[in-house]
Amino acid sequence: MRKHNFSAGPAVLPVPVLEELREQLKDLHGSGVGLMEISHRSATFDAIVQSAFARVRRVLALPDSYTVLFLQGGASTQFLMIPANLLQGGHADYLNTGTWSTKAIKEARRYGSVSVPFDGAEVGYRSLPARWEHTDGVVYSHYTSNNTIHGTQFHGVPETPGLLVCDASSDIASAAWDGSKFDVLYAGAQKNLGPSGVTLVCLSERAMERAEASDVPTMLDYGVHAAKGSLFNTPNTLGIFVLERVLAWVEEQGLDVVAARNERKAQALYSLLDSSDFWRPHAAVDNRSRMNVTWRLADADLEPALLAQADDDGFSGIKGHRSVGGLRASIYNACPEESVMALVAFLEEFERTHG
Amino acid sequence: MRKHNFSAGPAVLPVPVLEELREQLKDLHGSGVGLMEISHRSATFDAIVQSAFARVRRVLALPDSYTVLFLQGGASTQFLMIPANLLQGGHADYLNTGTWSTKAIKEARRYGSVSVPFDGAEVGYRSLPARWEHTDGVVYSHYTSNNTIHGTQFHGVPETPGLLVCDASSDIASAAWDGSKFDVLYAGAQKNLGPSGVTLVCLSERAMERAEASDVPTMLDYGVHAAKGSLFNTPNTLGIFVLERVLAWVEEQGLDVVAARNERKAQALYSLLDSSDFWRPHAAVDNRSRMNVTWRLADADLEPALLAQADDDGFSGIKGHRSVGGLRASIYNACPEESVMALVAFLEEFERTHG
Repeated sequence: MRKHNFSAGPAVLPVPVLEELREQLKDLHGSGVGLMEISHRSATFDAIVQSAFARVRRVLALPDSYTVLFLQGGASTQFLMIPANLLQGGHADYLNTGTWSTKAIKEARRYGSVSVPFDGAEVGYRSLPARWEHTDGVVYSHYTSNNTIHGTQFHGVPETPGLLVCDASSDIASAAWDGSKFDVLYAGAQKNLGPSGVTLVCLSERAMERAEASDVPTMLDYGVHAAKGSLFNTPNTLGIFVLERVLAWVEEQGLDVVAARNERKAQALYSLLDSSDFWRPHAAVDNRSRMNVTWRLADADLEPALLAQADDDGFSGIKGHRSVGGLRASIYNACPEESVMALVAFLEEFERTHG
Repeated sequence: MRKHNFSAGPAVLPVPVLEELREQLKDLHGSGVGLMEISHRSATFDAIVQSAFARVRRVLALPDSYTVLFLQGGASTQFLMIPANLLQGGHADYLNTGTWSTKAIKEARRYGSVSVPFDGAEVGYRSLPARWEHTDGVVYSHYTSNNTIHGTQFHGVPETPGLLVCDASSDIASAAWDGSKFDVLYAGAQKNLGPSGVTLVCLSERAMERAEASDVPTMLDYGVHAAKGSLFNTPNTLGIFVLERVLAWVEEQGLDVVAARNERKAQALYSLLDSSDFWRPHAAVDNRSRMNVTWRLADADLEPALLAQADDDGFSGIKGHRSVGGLRASIYNACPEESVMALVAFLEEFERTHG
């Protein structure tokens, strides 16, 4: 019996994808060889990688000139690969909108100078800047489009001088975006795209050109991975298979349908949280995330009882991140609308009983 | 219908492991959350990681003082992490015994000076050195215990001054080794341990102590991953699950039973290849690998016919690596003895028909 899963990542996946994966484990597409057992250089696997590339390009509306890579090591490895390839002693602006931005800033400082024109620590990471001061001659600006831990999200792509770099780990492919606005768009797969262990990195032509001048170890070099179509070394083959199937699931429904459902899911939760003083939503109203809804109870002493009851009633993963406390519901693409409706009903009942 | 799979990696896995994986995809151990969908910080997943650590320690006979890490990025990422953490401008000796050693040497030169006391290129990578000259004051010596592409294998652990570093990607856990002889023992999982996308790294206390003095980016720092028990960032959770199950499969049979079977499998193939001039085994007799058997036909023009016939008859992955040509049978732990016997019978029949 599957629970309603609100885990922040690794996160719930579409059941049809899990069922298809089951079928391919012992014999991939009738090849006589299982999915995890087939050479990454076989024609059978190559067709999967090529389909995954094509789906990424369509779903993210990337121009043909963009490079798409499937790497390993999570967004955390991109925190160092991006400045190692692009900064080259130059200057970057980084918005600090939460834990992951903070980590990205730390790595970037190894490779050049970094300004932080917005530091969310001053506002408890509840809000995001509408605009900020850009440093003259900035090589790139980096921001985190959705902050998983604090539950904030940019609703629009900022205009910046230089290259625009975006960590979209927790809201990639959740709505129609214009991929051409980004020079580096990257995401760990384990929230909206698939299982952990695959990282998607999309790079514009001018980002790839700038990377050419860098001198970095082979495995950190975007140019090396691009030249080999992400098969310089053995990739996470199962991870790429699942990513391809998850994007197929998105495309079969239509990204607009998925996005509209995401908006309804978030709206249902925020409506409840705004309906009484019993709840204390965390993020500023204009910066609320449609992917991670974070809140406290007015009476924080009731939170353990709520978490215990939720667990008994079949809800998983709604405990807030240890750095924020309280509650969090991660409602990525694959989180079913009925899970959100069940959670809303549960919370209403809890309020009736304890309010 | 599963073929006889001799792929060099990703490679054949034990069928019981695939069947167990199928069962856990939608609901891991009755948690109500699927294997790829559960938090890496959950108690359910933690039990899997801890069991995987314990199995690695037992199977590799590692002293308690050793650190065990599950990382991402393959052995190729270790080619840079090892010198980045350990070399610190010092000197290392690297044996060049094939393609992967060559790649490791290239990365190491970024972090210090490197000698190559044995260069197998001079002998077509057919043989391995029994001994070599050690550089005074060497920080570490690096070797590749089994060379997947050329089909050579060290049968014994070399004695060296300084630290001993071993890339055991293609023969780890294939026989009983004394883990305490190594300071760094590392392996991509996709040959003997599980699926692609997980890298095992085992480090001695003195290797960890030396790494402490290094100044490397966070994700490349052994100390960071060790302090967080390999959960500094989201690991490849499915990959670790499968690795744990593969090692359980080894332990249930006994490593000695698996090793004896590996020896019989290799012996069956080499006996055939030595039985007539029709075949031309590649590796020097004393350095033959029990994991990857490589050979040519005396009449190389017959090789395409053999490969085509093999494919028709249900054998997969016996084409030699593009850099060597000819044929290769990778017969890792999970390659069933009956697959090897079927291949021997097929080759005998081919020789009868074409010899």
